[in-house]
Order: sequence, then C-alpha cells, then structure tokens
Amino acid sequence: MPSNENKSLSGAGLRGQSAGSTSLCTVGKSGTGLTYRGYDITDLANNAEFEEVAHLLLRGHLPNQKELDAYKTRLVGLRGLPLPLRHALELIPASAHPMDVMRTGCSMLGNIEQEMDFSEQEHATERMLALFPAIICYWYRFSHDGVRIDTQDHSEDSLGGYFLKMLTDKEPSELHKQVMHCSLILYAEHEFNASTFAARVCASTLSDIHSCITAAIGTLRGPLHGGANEAAMEMIQDWPTPEQAEQNIMQMLENKDKIMGFGHAIYRESDPRNALIKRWSEVLAESVNDTQLYAVSERVESVMKREKNLFCNADFFHASAYHFMDIPTQLFTPIFVMSRLTGWAAHVYEQRENNRIIRPSADYDGPEHQEWVPIEQRD
Amino acid sequence: MPSNENKSLSGAGLRGQSAGSTSLCTVGKSGTGLTYRGYDITDLANNAEFEEVAHLLLRGHLPNQKELDAYKTRLVGLRGLPLPLRHALELIPASAHPMDVMRTGCSMLGNIEQEMDFSEQEHATERMLALFPAIICYWYRFSHDGVRIDTQDHSEDSLGGYFLKMLTDKEPSELHKQVMHCSLILYAEHEFNASTFAARVCASTLSDIHSCITAAIGTLRGPLHGGANEAAMEMIQDWPTPEQAEQNIMQMLENKDKIMGFGHAIYRESDPRNALIKRWSEVLAESVNDTQLYAVSERVESVMKREKNLFCNADFFHASAYHFMDIPTQLFTPIFVMSRLTGWAAHVYEQRENNRIIRPSADYDGPEHQEWVPIEQRD
Repeated sequence: MPSNENKSLSGAGLRGQSAGSTSLCTVGKSGTGLTYRGYDITDLANNAEFEEVAHLLLRGHLPNQKELDAYKTRLVGLRGLPLPLRHALELIPASAHPMDVMRTGCSMLGNIEQEMDFSEQEHATERMLALFPAIICYWYRFSHDGVRIDTQDHSEDSLGGYFLKMLTDKEPSELHKQVMHCSLILYAEHEFNASTFAARVCASTLSDIHSCITAAIGTLRGPLHGGANEAAMEMIQDWPTPEQAEQNIMQMLENKDKIMGFGHAIYRESDPRNALIKRWSEVLAESVNDTQLYAVSERVESVMKREKNLFCNADFFHASAYHFMDIPTQLFTPIFVMSRLTGWAAHVYEQRENNRIIRPSADYDGPEHQEWVPIEQRD
Repeated sequence: MPSNENKSLSGAGLRGQSAGSTSLCTVGKSGTGLTYRGYDITDLANNAEFEEVAHLLLRGHLPNQKELDAYKTRLVGLRGLPLPLRHALELIPASAHPMDVMRTGCSMLGNIEQEMDFSEQEHATERMLALFPAIICYWYRFSHDGVRIDTQDHSEDSLGGYFLKMLTDKEPSELHKQVMHCSLILYAEHEFNASTFAARVCASTLSDIHSCITAAIGTLRGPLHGGANEAAMEMIQDWPTPEQAEQNIMQMLENKDKIMGFGHAIYRESDPRNALIKRWSEVLAESVNDTQLYAVSERVESVMKREKNLFCNADFFHASAYHFMDIPTQLFTPIFVMSRLTGWAAHVYEQRENNRIIRPSADYDGPEHQEWVPIEQRD
C-alpha cells in the first residue's frame, strides 16, 4: 500500500501542524529568518551578551544596563553546587554520556530544590542557568582528572566565560568569551523544536519545571537533534587537507551517507545562524594559526552547496569554533543545553499561562478484536 | 477577539489530531473501550498476570506457560541495584517527591548501564521493569526508616508481590498480589496519553531509552496526569461517613472545586477500568473490616453521577484499594510508573521502527519586528 504509506509519511512527526501558539520565536518567517520576541537573530548575535538574550526570553524584554548588571550578579551568586548533587555527580563514571550527566544533574537538583509552586519558576530557572556549567564541569573534571573544582567562582560574570574557566581552570580570553556569547545566543531558542516540544508536553500536565527541563535534555540528546555539531566534528577532525576532505565528502555522497551539519527541517535556503558562527570560527582559526580545520570546513561547505545545494546549519561551523577553543567534542551538546535552557524555560512559562494538556490521538493499525485464550491453551 | 480565542482553544493540546499510528492500544473504540493489541482490558484484568501483559506489550504476544516462566525468571534475576545507583538514592532526602526519585533513579541508571544501541532496548527495558520497584522502595525505606533493604530478593516472582515485599518487608497475601496484577494491568498502556507522547517525542530524535522513560516519568508526575489517585485519596481520607462525604462533595461542587478521579478526556460514558478495580477495592475493604472508606467512596461515586453525570475513572477506586493494602499515598504514582513503563517502552520501540522527528509548528502571537536598541539607550 504505497499510497497509504506516503500519506502517513507526509503527516508524520506533526510536520507543518500547529501544536499551539508562542510569542517567543519565529523560524523562517521574516528578516533573516529567526527572531526572538521580534528581534532579529543577527542583531542579537552581533550586539548582545548572552545574559541580555536570556533576560529577553525569560523576563520579556531586553534589560537596561542596571537590570543586566543585577541579573548577572544574581546568576553569579547562584553557582554553588549543593552537596548531595556534588556527591551524585561523583558517582557517575567517566565513561558516561555527558548528556546523561546533564539530564541526571538536572533531575537530581529537582529532588534537592523542588519547585513547590509555579511562583518559584523564575528562581528555579535562574538556579539551573547558573548551575548547568557547574554540573557538567564538576563531573568532567572529577571523573577525568580526579579534581574537585570549586564552582563558586565569581571571577567570570558571563555564563560562557564561567564555563570555560570551570573547564580549563584558566582565565578565558576576551575573544573566547565573545564567541561564547554569540554561540549561546544562536542556540538559545528555536520555536517548537523537538526538545522544546517535549518540555511543553511535560509542562502541560502541570508537572514541575525540573521534570520539563530533564525531558528536554533527554530529547536534545538524540543524534537527530542536539548531536549534530559533535557528529560534524567527528567527521572532519581527521581530514588533513581540503582536497582530501572533498574526496571524502564525494565518497560519502556516493555511499548516501548522512552528512551532519547541513540542511534544516524548516529553513529552505540558508540557516541565518551559520554566517554568524562561521565568522567567529574564522577569527578563532587565525588566533590558533590553524591551517587545516577551517579550510577543510570551508571546502566541505562549498562541496555540499555545489553537489547537493545544501547549506550549513547552525551546527557545522560550531564544530570547528568549539574545537579551536579546546572544548572536548563530547561537551558540545551540553553547551547547547546551557543555552537552550532559556528557550525551554520560557516555553514552560508560556505553556503554564494558557494550559491544556497535550494529548493527541493516534491512528490504530494493530490487530482487530482478539479472543482471550487461557495460558494452558496457548501454542 | 472571542471567536479567535475559541478557535485556538478547540485545537489546543492537539485534541483529536493524529500524531502518528500505533498497533498497541485503542481507547474508546470497541468492546468495553480499551484494548491492548486487540485484547479487551476486561479479559486481561480478570484473567492475566501483569507479566503476561508486559510480555504482550513488549514482545508482541501473550506468552505460553513456558515463555511466561522464562520471562519471570529473567526479570527476577535483574533485581540487583548497581552500587552507584544505591548511593545516589541515599543522597535523596525523605522530603523529596517520590516521582522525582523515580525520574532520577531512571536517569542515573542510564549513566551506569547506557543503552549503546537500539539492539539493547529490550534488555534495558527489562532491567527497568525489574528495578523500578527496587528504586522506589530502596529510597523510601532508607530515607524514612534508615534501612538498607536487599533488593535482590527472589521470594516473590511477580512485580506486584515484589513491590509489596520490598515496601513492607512482609510476605504479601495472595489477595494483595492478585489486586496488584489487576492494578498494574489497568495502568499498563493508554495510547497517546501525555507521558507516552513525551516518550515518543524524545524517541523521535533517536535518543536512548533511559532519556525517553525519564521524560515520561516527569510528564506523568503532573497533577493533570498521574497524580489523580493520590489527590482522590487526599480528598476522601478524612471523611468519616457517607453522609458527611455527600455534604462535602455538594459543597465542593458549589465552590466549583476540581474533584479528582472523575471523567476522562476520551471516554464519554464510563471508564472500563473502574469496575475492575472497584470490585477489588470492595473485596479489600471486607478483608480489613473497613466500615468507612469504601462506603465513602461509593457515595462519592453516586453523588457525582447524580449531580454531574460524571463517572469514576481508573484512579478513583485505586485510591481506596491501595490504601487498604497499606501503601502510603505518596507511592501511588510510582506504582503507575512501574506499570506504564511497559506501554512507554513499547511505544519507544514502535517510534524507532518507523521514525520521523516529531517537530510541530506553532502559531506566532508575539511582537512584530523590533529595532535593535543599544543597551545604553534603553529605558
């Protein structure tokens, strides 16, 4: 029944079906294609700090200087990891998937600092915003280096700078902090993507916010969603020259292998986030005298355009950019979590504002009525 | 714009919209209104053990005696809690929400025994099926009684009996084990309810099964979903007589208070699960010489029918039934988890079989294009 199959596939995954409304984001509608509360992503990524965008998404408007200072001071003050959470992180082996660590850290936090009432949602979110870099770095440094880092560090007042400091134990450069602002802004929000939608389904039963964010982290973990920048890095990291990269890509295309970091479910002509992170990848490449990875990335981009008319999405040049900052590949998706938390939480607030439980129907394609057969009569 | 508002509300929560297909379950379509793989819920609840139904949902058919024995032996052998998981549970305070404990226990397990490949999905599910009673009871007994229970207990070969044994440290009666079979069967599966749908959204990014089940637990936690039997118990537990119960309900109806355990999003005339658990609640009431709670429950049922034409759903008589078995009210929803795990996992398998990422659209109702204003010029 191929026609039936086609029909069911065209509607699969709720593609193009509205599952609710949002005032947070448009994807592919106006300007360069991505807006947060009406602001174009290019304006935000070129001019704002990540904390300004977090404030925009979570508190509804871009802060003035006084508001931003107060917001950052508040977040900096929330960096202390509760003792049971630290102990729980120490129980997780070095071989664990870092996204499992993020998911478990968030879930564990919900036991220790339960959101008792929706009036606590902003505080709970700010605590997660402050703690997520601490959670991943505490586990990473403990399990890999045997070091118990002090996460109550006030030397860096931005989330990106704090993450780099916790990870490397070194003061991050101004350049790296700037790149982190841009990167975190680009990943902060993207309408009803799968992880955000999972958070809203969870919120729609009026569950607590830690459950919602835990669900979102688990959903982002999937290779079809958050894992693309890691997969792109793994693909290109050992390609020595642009010529070799071109040969490899041509071979992969011939094999019909999936090439990560290209195309998008909604954008048709380009992903507005690509140019923004690509520019930083180039600057970083110069800063580390890279002669390989950036050139390889650019070649892959042009071959994919030429052969498949496919464009880089947000993930592709993130791979080289993060790599140039010495961030281990397996921590790429946890950075996505630190950023997207702002979008997830803003969607949870919105769902709670005007809630109806999200409970779709299904088409039944199973067996018709089955007669009960007692166990002793079964084959 | 009231017309607009109405329009958006009628489609809210994807009500009545198909989000995919399933061969697992029909709700409200045929027979007494609920079937698992074509078998009527009444046949299953009156005749089967829970493990038979788990086998039906997870392995596709009702087992013969040999298959059932092997399945139960296998599950019994998987009851040992890994040490890091035990230690993590010991870190969770007695004041935590038991559903947060379940969510965290499941997530932690995913760090220790990661599903590396979908070929491991059945094993991972069986491990969760065996461990979920151990997780909740280990935490409960440790945090409340200071006791470290040995979860590797083989004296009870059914999940329900094992749970009661772990919880009370006593051999459960045959009656209690029978009631647990019925209860776990009734809660095992219910099509695209919110928690199952959350699991499928997570699965659709090709994430691991612990992420999917963790997301589902967090979603079931919400009071609009899994919390109804606990809420019903809290409502009726202090009502001394049927007369007082009637007075209280009439007052609540007058106040337009929400009365938990009644009505259903899909069933229109009755919930087929009610009669099945109600019968056991009555038997249990006699077994403990109850003269209050069952009579109060029956009166609440008849007043709700008379005043609102509303019927009891699966949750209402579960409250008294669990209470008669001395199960603490706050553990009602974790029992739901132990059972619904079978449905969730079966849906995850199904989603993986024919996957497309679940990524709906949204209606934008936010601000139009906003001009960027540098921070020093903001009000």
